Amino acid sequence: MQVLPPALTDLIEALGALPGVGPRTAERYAYFLLKHDTHVSARISDTLTHLHSGVGYCKKTFALISSNQELSDLYTDPRRDKQTIAVVAEPFDVVALEKTGQFSGTYHVLGGLVSPIDGIGPEQLHIRELISRIDEDGVKEIILATNASVEGETTALYIQQQIGGREVKVTRLARGLPIGVDLEYADQITLGRALEGRQTL
Amino acid sequence: MQVLPPALTDLIEALGALPGVGPRTAERYAYFLLKHDTHVSARISDTLTHLHSGVGYCKKTFALISSNQELSDLYTDPRRDKQTIAVVAEPFDVVALEKTGQFSGTYHVLGGLVSPIDGIGPEQLHIRELISRIDEDGVKEIILATNASVEGETTALYIQQQIGGREVKVTRLARGLPIGVDLEYADQITLGRALEGRQTL
Repeated sequence: MQVLPPALTDLIEALGALPGVGPRTAERYAYFLLKHDTHVSARISDTLTHLHSGVGYCKKTFALISSNQELSDLYTDPRRDKQTIAVVAEPFDVVALEKTGQFSGTYHVLGGLVSPIDGIGPEQLHIRELISRIDEDGVKEIILATNASVEGETTALYIQQQIGGREVKVTRLARGLPIGVDLEYADQITLGRALEGRQTL
Repeated sequence: MQVLPPALTDLIEALGALPGVGPRTAERYAYFLLKHDTHVSARISDTLTHLHSGVGYCKKTFALISSNQELSDLYTDPRRDKQTIAVVAEPFDVVALEKTGQFSGTYHVLGGLVSPIDGIGPEQLHIRELISRIDEDGVKEIILATNASVEGETTALYIQQQIGGREVKVTRLARGLPIGVDLEYADQITLGRALEGRQTL
């Protein structure tokens, strides 16, 4: 006996593949789409169809680009300083750094972090290409903007070793108290890093 | 300057139409779909395409059915007692009641609740059709299974008035302490209802 029509349960099941979406949320999305005009679901359906064919990776920085491009605008733009590279794990980290409006260098997306548990070794990341860029673009500073997780730190250490004796400044993003967070509410590790990185006034 | 390719930002915008999905969640969904094999997004896209064309409403109960059906299986099944009707606001309420496995009557989906603020009057709900069913099916009991909200109570009261002098038992779902909730953690209104509806042992 059917409680719900297959056209609906099929969609609920398909939406359940999204990260953090359980059966209840999938039901809510599906029923919302059913109640609304077809153009709402048609728009999602159409954009999904063009997703993989429309997105490519920059050959230099591995940032996300339109598939009809070769290189990211954030690399080719003459106002971007090619001698400063911010190294990030994932493509959306670029969006986060761009939003600050305070970085005018270029990016290098690793495509993940070294993680033996998940079977990801350094050779699977775009580290070789990063080292090549040092010589090609005469890079002066590499900002290792990976997370402060075990994987992030391992990856940063590995990259530092690969850079070796090359004459390039290697930096990390500052760790400390976020703006607007009171000292008493900060966690121990953050507070420890804030102490370590204290600056003279 | 493009930070993200349009094929991706278009999808992020389209997903942002879903209830409770902000830009961050939409980004997370879109990047998940981009990283995964095309068949994951193709499945969502395909099921979305067939959603509206594949789903219809039962002519008798207004429950969701396949568009190639006329009546809900939950109505036509001879094991379902047509003389007992559970009246619910939305189609998914049927799913919730079916999951209990304790109801063998039939349903009637109102398609909403009376709500003057949202401009929904009783004539926009399937109340007339419910009253017709009383005579057609010789209904003996109507269970008003609407929420305990102002709208739910108003709708229940209106239906009760429409039933008028007909010989049919009208009941409401029991309100009280949910299973597993301690008395000290129950809210006042629930506790008040539990007292009102107390049963002799």
